[in-house]
Amino acid sequence: MTGKVYLVGAGPGAPDLLTLRAARLLERADIVYYDALVQPETLALAGHAVQIAVGKRCGRHTTAQRFINKRLVDASARFEVVVRLKGGDPMLFGRAQEEIDALRAAGIEFEVVPGVTAASAASADLGISLTRRGRARSVCFVTPRVGAGEPDNDWAQNVIAADTAVIYMGSGLADPISAVLIERGQAGGTPVALVENASLPECRITFGELRDLPRMAQATGGGPVLIVLGEILREAASSSGAVLRLLKRA
Amino acid sequence: MTGKVYLVGAGPGAPDLLTLRAARLLERADIVYYDALVQPETLALAGHAVQIAVGKRCGRHTTAQRFINKRLVDASARFEVVVRLKGGDPMLFGRAQEEIDALRAAGIEFEVVPGVTAASAASADLGISLTRRGRARSVCFVTPRVGAGEPDNDWAQNVIAADTAVIYMGSGLADPISAVLIERGQAGGTPVALVENASLPECRITFGELRDLPRMAQATGGGPVLIVLGEILREAASSSGAVLRLLKRA
Repeated sequence: MTGKVYLVGAGPGAPDLLTLRAARLLERADIVYYDALVQPETLALAGHAVQIAVGKRCGRHTTAQRFINKRLVDASARFEVVVRLKGGDPMLFGRAQEEIDALRAAGIEFEVVPGVTAASAASADLGISLTRRGRARSVCFVTPRVGAGEPDNDWAQNVIAADTAVIYMGSGLADPISAVLIERGQAGGTPVALVENASLPECRITFGELRDLPRMAQATGGGPVLIVLGEILREAASSSGAVLRLLKRA
Repeated sequence: MTGKVYLVGAGPGAPDLLTLRAARLLERADIVYYDALVQPETLALAGHAVQIAVGKRCGRHTTAQRFINKRLVDASARFEVVVRLKGGDPMLFGRAQEEIDALRAAGIEFEVVPGVTAASAASADLGISLTRRGRARSVCFVTPRVGAGEPDNDWAQNVIAADTAVIYMGSGLADPISAVLIERGQAGGTPVALVENASLPECRITFGELRDLPRMAQATGGGPVLIVLGEILREAASSSGAVLRLLKRA
């Protein structure tokens, strides 16, 4: 048997932000390899599949990427529908390329199913558009995290150049992010929002300024955090009476 | 009656790339205002809703944004579930902020439902991740389109600073995009992909280099086009025997 591997975006967290295509694939899946941020309700759709956790949270226990690549290749010899379920969109900070390269090298058929990325969910939670006619025509998604032996691409320059920036996986790096950006010329008064657990009932938003980022980050819990920067936040950041705003959801 | 307005992302095109939440909202909708790029199969989900086209393709007939804002506010007085259905994600190049501002000013309750943005679909179609460990840690979504009277933010700088850039609504602007970027110092040999009709059966991908962009753009049809630039494309662009590759789908 030669199966097919689907790299599937699980979306930002809320189970109903999964796509129809992803939901149907999970129902058909024979085996699912899933990341740590995937919700139980999402996995429950894969009722008859073998479910294997392979993930992956910053600074916690992870399965080595090379080992995941190998498991996907091996699984395609034993199962018809192999799903690799990743938080958000697979092609944004998901290390999908390494899995794709391994599948291509082994001659395994694959398909990528895009998902809603966390930045879109954070923007929805904020009620503030990442782009804005006349004020923000570019948005940069970036991570300052560097793996061992990796070149230190200039993430700070990318943040500064864009009208709006969304920093992924910046949790725990608030101090250097704030310091480096200000040192490189970004105004300390740049409006910032921290969005923790975007799209989930326990979503938590904190507004402030770039210079306050370290203090703001101390108030976050253990959920995934996005840092949003830019003038699109100016009005919300200055008008929010309390710095901390807890969203209520139905 | 005071209804609620939902700004809903319809995703990149393929009807099954809609989220579960969006699908359920369409089924409950009393009235739907939809953009030109929304597919008929998606609208068909809104079986009992009044359906009103309000838009909006570059350079074609459009409904004035101010008029759309007003209709959303008015509709909330007459309908319980008002859906504003936008291509892609509402918060990326969707002019959502103008609608949100109008709804807030009128005291109308609203909610944003995020969607899969076109760049994620294009990346899935390419089979190439927009970020790549060690090589691309930032991706910039940008449009060079300027409305009347708008300041000319420096879109070119944003493209150049990012590791990967995705240009939205650049169709018809291939000549100036290529010329301006090269004039500003971007290498003419930067790998480029044009992705037309991302996620749809008639998706069409062309690989080339930045200096060839004007010629590449001549081969596109009338569908929405994304321009992807960056080193992530280097291998695919140089190994694709034909410059033009037509995707086949099941």
